Amino acid sequence: MNLRTNPAISAVEAPPIAEAMTWLRPGPRNRPVINLCQAVPSYPPAEALQEAIGRFAHEDKVSLYTDILGLPELRESLAAHMNTAYGGKVAADDVAITAGCNQAFAAAVMALAGPGDNVVLSAPYYFNHQMWLDMLRVEVRHLPCRLPGLVPSPEDALKLIDARTRAIVLCSPNNPTGAIYPPATLAAFHDLACSQGTVLVLDETYKDFRTDIAPPHDLFATDAWRDSFVQLYSFSKVFGMTGYRVGSLIAGPAVLKEVEKILDCVAICAPHISQAAAHFGLQNLDAWKAEKIAMIHGRADALRSAFLRPDLAYRLESIGAFFAYVRHPFSGTPAKTVAQHLAGEHDLLCLPGSMFGPGQEDYLRLAFANVDATVMPQVAERLVDSQAMLNRQ
Amino acid sequence: MNLRTNPAISAVEAPPIAEAMTWLRPGPRNRPVINLCQAVPSYPPAEALQEAIGRFAHEDKVSLYTDILGLPELRESLAAHMNTAYGGKVAADDVAITAGCNQAFAAAVMALAGPGDNVVLSAPYYFNHQMWLDMLRVEVRHLPCRLPGLVPSPEDALKLIDARTRAIVLCSPNNPTGAIYPPATLAAFHDLACSQGTVLVLDETYKDFRTDIAPPHDLFATDAWRDSFVQLYSFSKVFGMTGYRVGSLIAGPAVLKEVEKILDCVAICAPHISQAAAHFGLQNLDAWKAEKIAMIHGRADALRSAFLRPDLAYRLESIGAFFAYVRHPFSGTPAKTVAQHLAGEHDLLCLPGSMFGPGQEDYLRLAFANVDATVMPQVAERLVDSQAMLNRQ
Repeated sequence: MNLRTNPAISAVEAPPIAEAMTWLRPGPRNRPVINLCQAVPSYPPAEALQEAIGRFAHEDKVSLYTDILGLPELRESLAAHMNTAYGGKVAADDVAITAGCNQAFAAAVMALAGPGDNVVLSAPYYFNHQMWLDMLRVEVRHLPCRLPGLVPSPEDALKLIDARTRAIVLCSPNNPTGAIYPPATLAAFHDLACSQGTVLVLDETYKDFRTDIAPPHDLFATDAWRDSFVQLYSFSKVFGMTGYRVGSLIAGPAVLKEVEKILDCVAICAPHISQAAAHFGLQNLDAWKAEKIAMIHGRADALRSAFLRPDLAYRLESIGAFFAYVRHPFSGTPAKTVAQHLAGEHDLLCLPGSMFGPGQEDYLRLAFANVDATVMPQVAERLVDSQAMLNRQ
Repeated sequence: MNLRTNPAISAVEAPPIAEAMTWLRPGPRNRPVINLCQAVPSYPPAEALQEAIGRFAHEDKVSLYTDILGLPELRESLAAHMNTAYGGKVAADDVAITAGCNQAFAAAVMALAGPGDNVVLSAPYYFNHQMWLDMLRVEVRHLPCRLPGLVPSPEDALKLIDARTRAIVLCSPNNPTGAIYPPATLAAFHDLACSQGTVLVLDETYKDFRTDIAPPHDLFATDAWRDSFVQLYSFSKVFGMTGYRVGSLIAGPAVLKEVEKILDCVAICAPHISQAAAHFGLQNLDAWKAEKIAMIHGRADALRSAFLRPDLAYRLESIGAFFAYVRHPFSGTPAKTVAQHLAGEHDLLCLPGSMFGPGQEDYLRLAFANVDATVMPQVAERLVDSQAMLNRQ
């Protein structure tokens, strides 16, 4: 019998991270693989956090559900955190705690859009955003991120918006490009969303890793934000706790009411122990966090320096937060072929631009934050080595 | 501005558990509330499990993602558990670990059905099943569970099936009724699914709390199961770890391939520490589990006895696993009015049948497993007290 599955799911490509792992040459090698593939913190959580989680495990209440929207004390501490970071007016009631930022995105766009609606998505995009919208049969309209800078423009977005546009989805600091959008650009996108009767959904998973100490934007300080803005965030990267699955969604009551129903069905609540851990982190780990952020800034600087190597034909188009976006020198060769070659022949694992959208065949995403600053010259070395491939073409 | 949300989400009622809590009379009372509302284990996890989780918290790997489909050792131990319990042929590769059974259901039906398709759902139903199918714009066809016994029939189901029927969803032991479907009935439903080219999706969250020691069904022993059967399960109840969010979905490769994409978008993976805990539970907690199950059987017996009280006009229509389904004596009065009265006037919290589907106005769901056996006479006492309401009608 031929089992029939939902064609909107079948048509979606398999998650790319697992596939990329298969490109590595099997067997022993005389140097370690440099893994620039998945954005996963290279460090364990703070010892104080591990100890706190160890204690929470013995509290009976941690074995029980929390409210669907999360632990009240975490909703409170995250609202306070956002108000400090953004100069905003976020209340605990505006916060939904989710089992990671993917879940926050899934709930946000499902609350806003269904089949027949469309969403404007900046491209290149984070692949799970496109996958989920395809699964929901929501039409995706790609908003180009142009060189130089790879920052999208509200003017381009305006041309894509019509009466069925339910959201403009941006990601800053961007995944995959690393580009950080200026506050004025984000404000202009928010104005556009307001004037067009749609909603700006902004994924700020990597906000803590910016180098600029000014607030990323002032949208939370506007009067209108609850009717026109949704912010997505994750505790995974900042506290090194990806495996704990805890993130957040901040929105006004109209969106949150719908998000609550969706979260009830896909999660009931985020894991209680992870929520308690995130609350502990917000209250106790500022110094630890600052140290890790400084370390990652050092890695960005080291990668930038490594790319100054004159014989390197790969070009760094954008770098920020966790990611760098690189143009490879084999124009006409599919990005996946290049990435497979780098993995199989040069023990360097990264993702091809083609995983992040159409028109990205010339690019590679380097999740540089995973790798120690001292390794960056080897990244450049292996890229240079790969250029021999040019001669074989 | 009027923010537009997805009408398929807006049309869904808010999750009912939170609403029920508001029915309680506020302020102090001279006796405790008896809470028969949400199915939440009344006991904490095993001390050995809490200690294990405390240790896991110090392992760096626990802070990282697992594979989307889960920790290999847990997929292995759950497959072994199912094969022992069912006499089946489940392999680790057939197992997806999810962040709870709601997520397993969400992924299973989304993998199978989209807008324009339909699903046959036994009614009364678990409310999150109906909610999620409504959100997906999948047509729901209610399969009646008739008295006596409240077990649905394949003959009734056949009348509801057409070319767009993508699944038959059953829940045994049932939520809300507690009814446990005989193996022969489940086999007949599986035969029906096979003959009609559709899939039987069976939620077995409460399987461990059956009194019968024979296997719940022998579907895993059939050759065809991977093309026509999906089993959903949860570690929440059996190990007293609802807050940890870990459950499972067992299916053949065609379904699992689609489920993996969905889980990537809504979860990435179930929380690592919770998966490690579930694995520990499967390997170490058989004796603890047996003791808790015996305790809950004692509670069921005590409730059955309490209902023998001759002046009790409420009638026990069905009882099993975690739930009892009770017919109230106020025919013509909405079930919600009765439940509100019981909560507000008699400190007895339970859910009205109307939350579980149309035609359920005469019923209440009692999640009896939450409450000590010694409390059951008081349950009956408060129900008898409530009968005075009859005289006021």
